[in-house]
Amino acid sequence: MDTIVYRPVRDELAYTFGGRMPVAHLRSGDVLEVFTEDCFGGRVRGPADLPSQVCQMPYLNPVSGPFFVEDAEPGDTLAVHIMSITPGREWGVSSTFPRFGALTSTSHTATLQPPLEERVWVYGIDRAAGTVRFQATGSDHRVDLPLEPMIGTIGVAPGGFEARATIVPDTHGGNLDTPLIRAGATVYLGVNVHGAMLALGDGHARQGEGEACGVGVEIATVTTLAVEVVKKTPTVWPRLETDTAIASIGCARPLEDAYRIAHTDLVGWAADLTGMDTLDAYQLVSQAGRAPIGNVCDPNYTVLAMVDTALLSGGYAAYGGVHARLRRAAEPR
Amino acid sequence: MDTIVYRPVRDELAYTFGGRMPVAHLRSGDVLEVFTEDCFGGRVRGPADLPSQVCQMPYLNPVSGPFFVEDAEPGDTLAVHIMSITPGREWGVSSTFPRFGALTSTSHTATLQPPLEERVWVYGIDRAAGTVRFQATGSDHRVDLPLEPMIGTIGVAPGGFEARATIVPDTHGGNLDTPLIRAGATVYLGVNVHGAMLALGDGHARQGEGEACGVGVEIATVTTLAVEVVKKTPTVWPRLETDTAIASIGCARPLEDAYRIAHTDLVGWAADLTGMDTLDAYQLVSQAGRAPIGNVCDPNYTVLAMVDTALLSGGYAAYGGVHARLRRAAEPR
Amino acid sequence: MDTIVYRPVRDELAYTFGGRMPVAHLRSGDVLEVFTEDCFGGRVRGPADLPSQVCQMPYLNPVSGPFFVEDAEPGDTLAVHIMSITPGREWGVSSTFPRFGALTSTSHTATLQPPLEERVWVYGIDRAAGTVRFQATGSDHRVDLPLEPMIGTIGVAPGGFEARATIVPDTHGGNLDTPLIRAGATVYLGVNVHGAMLALGDGHARQGEGEACGVGVEIATVTTLAVEVVKKTPTVWPRLETDTAIASIGCARPLEDAYRIAHTDLVGWAADLTGMDTLDAYQLVSQAGRAPIGNVCDPNYTVLAMVDTALLSGGYAAYGGVHARLRRAAEPR
Amino acid sequence: MDTIVYRPVRDELAYTFGGRMPVAHLRSGDVLEVFTEDCFGGRVRGPADLPSQVCQMPYLNPVSGPFFVEDAEPGDTLAVHIMSITPGREWGVSSTFPRFGALTSTSHTATLQPPLEERVWVYGIDRAAGTVRFQATGSDHRVDLPLEPMIGTIGVAPGGFEARATIVPDTHGGNLDTPLIRAGATVYLGVNVHGAMLALGDGHARQGEGEACGVGVEIATVTTLAVEVVKKTPTVWPRLETDTAIASIGCARPLEDAYRIAHTDLVGWAADLTGMDTLDAYQLVSQAGRAPIGNVCDPNYTVLAMVDTALLSGGYAAYGGVHARLRRAAEPR
Repeated sequence: MDTIVYRPVRDELAYTFGGRMPVAHLRSGDVLEVFTEDCFGGRVRGPADLPSQVCQMPYLNPVSGPFFVEDAEPGDTLAVHIMSITPGREWGVSSTFPRFGALTSTSHTATLQPPLEERVWVYGIDRAAGTVRFQATGSDHRVDLPLEPMIGTIGVAPGGFEARATIVPDTHGGNLDTPLIRAGATVYLGVNVHGAMLALGDGHARQGEGEACGVGVEIATVTTLAVEVVKKTPTVWPRLETDTAIASIGCARPLEDAYRIAHTDLVGWAADLTGMDTLDAYQLVSQAGRAPIGNVCDPNYTVLAMVDTALLSGGYAAYGGVHARLRRAAEPR
Repeated sequence: MDTIVYRPVRDELAYTFGGRMPVAHLRSGDVLEVFTEDCFGGRVRGPADLPSQVCQMPYLNPVSGPFFVEDAEPGDTLAVHIMSITPGREWGVSSTFPRFGALTSTSHTATLQPPLEERVWVYGIDRAAGTVRFQATGSDHRVDLPLEPMIGTIGVAPGGFEARATIVPDTHGGNLDTPLIRAGATVYLGVNVHGAMLALGDGHARQGEGEACGVGVEIATVTTLAVEVVKKTPTVWPRLETDTAIASIGCARPLEDAYRIAHTDLVGWAADLTGMDTLDAYQLVSQAGRAPIGNVCDPNYTVLAMVDTALLSGGYAAYGGVHARLRRAAEPR
Repeated sequence: MDTIVYRPVRDELAYTFGGRMPVAHLRSGDVLEVFTEDCFGGRVRGPADLPSQVCQMPYLNPVSGPFFVEDAEPGDTLAVHIMSITPGREWGVSSTFPRFGALTSTSHTATLQPPLEERVWVYGIDRAAGTVRFQATGSDHRVDLPLEPMIGTIGVAPGGFEARATIVPDTHGGNLDTPLIRAGATVYLGVNVHGAMLALGDGHARQGEGEACGVGVEIATVTTLAVEVVKKTPTVWPRLETDTAIASIGCARPLEDAYRIAHTDLVGWAADLTGMDTLDAYQLVSQAGRAPIGNVCDPNYTVLAMVDTALLSGGYAAYGGVHARLRRAAEPR
Repeated sequence: MDTIVYRPVRDELAYTFGGRMPVAHLRSGDVLEVFTEDCFGGRVRGPADLPSQVCQMPYLNPVSGPFFVEDAEPGDTLAVHIMSITPGREWGVSSTFPRFGALTSTSHTATLQPPLEERVWVYGIDRAAGTVRFQATGSDHRVDLPLEPMIGTIGVAPGGFEARATIVPDTHGGNLDTPLIRAGATVYLGVNVHGAMLALGDGHARQGEGEACGVGVEIATVTTLAVEVVKKTPTVWPRLETDTAIASIGCARPLEDAYRIAHTDLVGWAADLTGMDTLDAYQLVSQAGRAPIGNVCDPNYTVLAMVDTALLSGGYAAYGGVHARLRRAAEPR
C-alpha cells in the first residue's frame, strides 16, 4: 500500500471527465492525498470578486486528476473510500450566480425576467470549533453553522468516448453535490474505460439540501482517500455506503426522475442483498427509506435513496465487504 | 377550553375538502379528539383484500370532519397543534396499487406496460415496543421498524367554491403525506372560507421519504389536537413548526416545483423573522436548509423546506408564538 | 330537436365545474346557442384595465352553464359538436399577468425575481376580413393575424363530489386551451355525474401553440353547439374528432406527462378502431401522429395526440359515427 | 464554390460531437454531398434483427464527419442549408427498444415493470410515389404514409473540451429529431471550436411529432448541403429558417423547459428583427407562434418555437439574409 500525494498546478486542473490523460497512477489499496481547488478556481476571495467577472466561462468547477487505477476495466466497480476532507484555506465563499440556482430562472428554465443580483458571501472557517460563520450582507444577522466538509464532484471517465463537463452529474459520477460524500463514506462508481480515470474536486465546508442558490460554502481541500477495484461487478448509477447505510444516487431532470432512478436502483440492490423479491424490497424501501436531495441546480438534479444496512441483516455485504475493509485500513494505528 | 370528541360513523366520512357541511364546531383553544379511518376505509385487512377490489373508486382516503372553527375568516391562519396520534388498531396495512406509486407507470406518467402486481402487506403494531413489523411475502425476511405515527391528510376548505378530492395536496393542505406532521408539530393553514372547515385522516404508523410505493403503513388513529385562529395573518402554502424548526410545504409537479415553492416561501418567512433581505435569507437557507421529500406519488408531490429556528434567533416568533403557547397548553399537568 | 338559447346575467356566471345547479336542460340532438363571457368577465377593455386590478381573484375564467343533459349518466360519453363560434364584441384583449405564463416564474415555478410587467393589448376584430389586428405598444409594429375563434374552456362536472376551478384542465375537460376546439369539431367528454353538467366559456379569437404569455386574444362569444349522449361508452380523458382526424387530450405537469397521457390514450383508441395490437398502433402513431401543444401556462398543461382517420380506414367509426351524424345535422338546409 | 463528396467507411463513423479529428475541410459556399448511415449503422434489416442484439451499446446513431469549416471560430454562426435528402436504400426500419421511448418506462423514468416487447417494422420506400408503407405485424392493417425525409442528427463540436454522445441534443445541435430539418431549411449552429466540426446523420424517411416509440422510419441517406460562416454572430441554441418561417430549438427535460428555452430565444430573435420591445415580441409570439414538438424520447427532449417571417416584415433579414442567399445558390440552373 502506497500513499500518493498530488497537488495540481493551475494548468493541470481538469474541466471534464473523460478526454484527458492521467496525472498519476493508483493501485488497489493505495491511499491518495490530493489537493482540490474550489469551484471558482480560488478566484473568488471577497465581495468584489463576482464569479461571472473573475472566472472564465465555461471553466468552472475544476477537478484534480484523472488518476489511472491499475486493473480497473469496464464492467468493474471502483470503490473510493473517503478518509478525510480538510479545508485548504481559512475561508469559504458562496454566491448567487446569474441564471443559476433553484430559486431563479436559469438558462434552461428560461424566462424573460432579469436575473437576480449577483452577490458574494465570505464564510470564516473555525476548524477548532468546527464551524463556519454566516454573515448577512444587508443586516446584522450572523450565525455559526456546523463545519461538515464534503466533496461535491467525484467521478470517472464516461464510456463511448464521451467527455462531460465537470458541472454535470450523471452515471459516471461528476457533480453529485450531496453532503453524504464526506469522510467515512465509500463511493462506488462503475468503470467505463481502461484505468477508470478517477478525478475529484469542488469541496464544500457545508451545503443545505438541494444547494438552493446553486453554490455551497466552497472550499479548497486536502482530501485523503483509499481505492479498491471490485472486479467483474458492474455499477450503473453511483452508489455509496457508510457504516450504517447504503444509498443509490439518481441524476436527472425532472427531479422525480432522479428519485425514480435512485429508488429503482436501491430496490434492486436491497433485493440482491437480502434475497427478497422485487415487490418485497419495494415495500421495505417504501416504509424505511430516506431520500435526501443532493442538488436542484446542476444540469442534472440529484436525489439519493438510502436505507439502513441493519434492516437488510442476515443478507450479504455490499460489494463483498469492501467498505468495511477500506474503513479498517483507513483507521489510524 | 373545551375538549370535543368526534368519531364518525361510516356515512359521515368525507372524500373532499370543501363542499361539505360541518360535523362539529371548535373554538380557539379547544382540544379535539378525533377518530380517523385509514386510507382504505378499514376495508383492507389481509392479503386477500386487494384495494382495487374491496374499495370503491374514487372513494379512498376518507377524512373526519369538516370542523367549523369559530372566528376563522379568509385572511386568517388556522394553527393546528398535534398533541398525540394513537394507532386505532393493532395492525396497519400497505400495498401496491395499480398505476399508482413512484416506481411504476401511472395514470399520468402513462405507459403501455402492464401494471405492477397488486399485493398487500400487513404490519403488526407493538405499541409497547414502539415498532411495526415488516414481513416479506416472497421470502423469510422480517424486520421491526420504528413506530412513528403521523397524519397523512389534513387541510381546510379551498376558496373559490372548489371542492378537492382528499387524495390531493395543495395550498389548502390535504394529502401532504409528510412524516413531519406528527405529535408535537403545529400545522399552519391559510383560511379560505368562513369557519375554515378543518378535516383530517389517513394516519400512517410510519412511511419512508417519498412514500415510494404510494402507500404508507396505513392505520386508523385517535388523534388529539388543539386549534387557534391567528387573525389577519394570511398563509399561502401550508407551513409547520416544531420545537426546533420551521418548515414550508410545497405541493406541485414536477418535484422541483414543489422544492421551489417550499424554498421560496421559507426564504420569505426567514427574512420576515430576522429582518434579513431576501438574498441574505436565500443564502442562509441554501447552506443550512433541509429539504425532506414528503410524497412522490400523489396528484401533487410534496417537498418541505426546513430550517432550525435557532439559526433565526434574535428575531421574532412565528405567528406570534402560537406554537409555544399551544405546546404548553397541550402538556399534561 | 330543440334550440335552447341561453345568455347568463352576471351573477349566473360559474367559476367551477361541479358544485352548481343547472341553468337549463338539454336533450340528445338539441342545439344550444350560448353567450360566453371572456376570461376577464369583460372587465378588461383597454390598456388601463390591468387584470390584477379590475378582476377579483380567484374569480377569473367564467363559464356559462352548467347544462343538464337528459339521459347522461356516469359511464356514458357526452359528444358536443361545435357548430359555430362568433365573437361577441368588436375587440379582443390579451395581457401579461403577474406570475402566470410560460416565460415567467409563476406561483408554482416559484423564483425570487420580481414579476414581469403587467400590460394589456387590445386587438381589433375584423369579421369580414377574418382577421385580428396586433398593435405593438413599444414600437410601430402592426400586423393582421387570422381570426380563428376557439373555445378555451369546456367541460362537465367531475366525479367524487369534486368542484374544480374553471382555470384547471383535467379529465373532466375544463381549461383545455387548444385551438382545435373550433367550429366543426366534436368534443368527447366522459360523464361523471347524473346529467353531465356541461359548461363552457373562455373564447379566444386566436392563440399561439402553448398560449405562451398565459392569455389568448380573449373574447366573448356566441357559440352554437349540438349534443348527443353516447350510452354505455366511457371516456377517460377528453377527446375530439374533426372531419379528418381524431385526437386525445392529455392534461398534466410536467408537459411530457400530458404527451404520455394523450398518446397512450390515442394508441388504445387507434387499436380499438383498426383491430391492430397495441405495439402496431404505437408504431403507426409514432410515425404518423401529430402532437399539437395546447397550453403551457394553466395548472395542468395540455398536449393533444392526433392522427388522420384516413390512416385507420377499414376499421370502425369512433363512438358509433356520432361526429358525422352531428356534423350533418348541423349543416344549414 | 466546390462540391465535396464524402462517404464514410465503417470505421470512420463517429459517435460523439467533439473529441474527433476532421474527415474533410469545407469553405463558406462549398457544397457537401455526404452519405449518412441509419441510426442502427445499417444492421437492422428485418424482424429478426433486434437492435439490442445486433447493435453494440452505446455505439448507436453514427454520424458522418466531422467536417472542418474554414474560418469558423468561436462566436461565429455556421449556417447549413439542406439542399436535398435522398434515401440511401429502398427500405427503412423502425422498432421498439427496451427502456427507450415516450410510452414506456426508461433508464431515467425508471420503474419496476418489465420493458415492452422489442419489435422491428420494415417500411418499403416508394420514391416515385413519395410514400413509405406501414405494415402491421399483428394484423392486416397496411397504409402508405408520405415520404418526408429529414436529418435527425446534425451539430458541431461543443465547447469546453466536451465530447457528447450523438444521441444527445443540446446547444451544439446533435440529435434534434425534428421533421423541420428537411430540404429547403437552413440550420444555424453556434460555433464553439476552431473549424466548427460539423457532423450529421440519423436520417428518417418520416417521423411523427415527438417520435413516440423512440425510433423514426430510419434510413441511410445521401444528403446535399451548403455551408456559410456568419462571422461575429453568436448563436446560443440551434435555430432554423425556411422560406416562410424562423424557429428556435430548445433541448431540455422536462419538456416545458424545452418549450421555455425555444420561446425565450424566439422572443428575443423576433424583437431583434422588428425593433419591438421584449413584451411586445412575447405578445406576438404568444398569439402567432407554433410549437412543434421534436422528440420526447432522447436524453433531452426538443420543442421548436416558430413564427412566420411575414409577421415580422419591415424588419431585418435573419443572419444577414444567408438563408435566401444559400437557397438561391442551391437552385438548379
